Amino acid sequence: MRKVVVIGGGSGSYLVLKGLKEYPLQIYSIVSMFDSGGSTGKLRDQLGVLPPGDVRRCLIALADDDHENILRELFMFRFEGGVENHSLGNLILTAAEQNYGNLAEGIKKLSQVLNLKGTVLPVSLDNAQLCAQLADGTVIKGETNIDIPEGERAKIEKVFLEPPAKLNSEAAEAIREADLIVIGPGDLYTSLIPNMLVEGIQEALAESKAKIAYVCNLMTKKGETDGFRVSDFVNEIENYLPRPVDHIICNENHISRMSLERYRLNNQFPVVFDMAEDQRAIVAELIDQPDVVRHNLRKLAHELVRLC
Amino acid sequence: MRKVVVIGGGSGSYLVLKGLKEYPLQIYSIVSMFDSGGSTGKLRDQLGVLPPGDVRRCLIALADDDHENILRELFMFRFEGGVENHSLGNLILTAAEQNYGNLAEGIKKLSQVLNLKGTVLPVSLDNAQLCAQLADGTVIKGETNIDIPEGERAKIEKVFLEPPAKLNSEAAEAIREADLIVIGPGDLYTSLIPNMLVEGIQEALAESKAKIAYVCNLMTKKGETDGFRVSDFVNEIENYLPRPVDHIICNENHISRMSLERYRLNNQFPVVFDMAEDQRAIVAELIDQPDVVRHNLRKLAHELVRLC
Repeated sequence: MRKVVVIGGGSGSYLVLKGLKEYPLQIYSIVSMFDSGGSTGKLRDQLGVLPPGDVRRCLIALADDDHENILRELFMFRFEGGVENHSLGNLILTAAEQNYGNLAEGIKKLSQVLNLKGTVLPVSLDNAQLCAQLADGTVIKGETNIDIPEGERAKIEKVFLEPPAKLNSEAAEAIREADLIVIGPGDLYTSLIPNMLVEGIQEALAESKAKIAYVCNLMTKKGETDGFRVSDFVNEIENYLPRPVDHIICNENHISRMSLERYRLNNQFPVVFDMAEDQRAIVAELIDQPDVVRHNLRKLAHELVRLC
Repeated sequence: MRKVVVIGGGSGSYLVLKGLKEYPLQIYSIVSMFDSGGSTGKLRDQLGVLPPGDVRRCLIALADDDHENILRELFMFRFEGGVENHSLGNLILTAAEQNYGNLAEGIKKLSQVLNLKGTVLPVSLDNAQLCAQLADGTVIKGETNIDIPEGERAKIEKVFLEPPAKLNSEAAEAIREADLIVIGPGDLYTSLIPNMLVEGIQEALAESKAKIAYVCNLMTKKGETDGFRVSDFVNEIENYLPRPVDHIICNENHISRMSLERYRLNNQFPVVFDMAEDQRAIVAELIDQPDVVRHNLRKLAHELVRLC
């Protein structure tokens, strides 16, 4: 069975995994572990565990279709009062990490009882903070602070981890043995690139014979990728990779005027496709309703499976 | 497929369910819901939910063999500090009850994602306390207080629920359609009889064409069944049933002297078999090591399956 590694963590990974699980593939989901907000951040502070938020989403994506809604409902459930407002999913992952000694082992046990159709691997088992250095020299610490900008700010110049974190050895193995590596869609600096910052991933990616497919975002994100065209995304991700990506997957659907207006109020704009000359670009209709600016998971999976 | 209903809730039900799940049977576990101690009692008080303790044990019993240990470890996990020392299993069941409106529905959803080999049914969805009236007129309230006696006390004369509770309609249906109903092993007044106290169960048992098999305990229990022989157990359970039991399953193994000594320190003694004349008695070697006074689940299941 062909092996596909999906690198990311946020809602983009969710879509890719949910689409891919319908195919006879061995799926590995490598998840960024540097989230610092909400219940996740609180658990991180209180109990010293790794942030479980993104892992939770990927576990749900890999469940049987029949089970997905139940798992989502249960994982997202929050106790009112009484149990400090944590989501049940975070409590389960925290318990699994503490009981089995580390999060990777905890996820493995949990995936087993839930009969998941793939393997979720934390990119690192080390506790680190994501930091961003802006063009004006300011340094922002913490994933949430980078993700949700307070007002205007200078362009992100580079992101880094503090202290450094090492690649989880099972994630290294998955990358080395993969047939296809999918990066994105997802927030460039807070979901995708953080994975590339862990020590050892450059070597693993360099040694892997897998093709790398980058799925470009549909819209820019305020404070992160303002004004970015497809080539900007690709150039920036390649700054953090040991070799160029092999495929660039882009959308060519039109987005409705109403949607554009809605996003504009949020300072988000469609990512302009400017790589027609590049042989690596695969352009397809990946949105099905012009009003919902989100990849159609079946169409996206269809494009990805052709690359395996 | 033959339908077996196991009535109880405590560790006796766990053994019976674990043994039966190896056979091609449709299994229903009807669980007493009047537990009041520990984390279970606290959740009951704080969040107004039904006691999840016994349900948790029955869910574990019905999991795939490969998953059983993981489920047990996760369900039994307790957060140190931070999350008020509840077990994860209780938190999961509480979340399921609150999210799906009632515990029966919550258990159903949970059983689905866990691929369980049977259906766990709370005997009632009403909140009630188990009470015991002693021979000296004293009334004890709360399952824990009856279960763990403080010093010497008079014999239990009868147990009752306050306020009354109604039979869960799905449990009623399972009883009516069963081929075999297994009662026990388990604490007579705190695990088995509480089920018989809910309104509607007498009618369901009377209407059911199923044979009723009573599995007698191996040892007496201080403050509950001191001095009881097999006939005492049978007479007392029949006081709470609309018809006599059809089979009485008893052990004939010897118990080692060392074990007897250990139990004696706890005021527990082997239940003497005094029903050799009774055609309903099935006597078999049900313990495999004379040092561990516990039913062998395979041997017990083997005897029960023959009655289906």
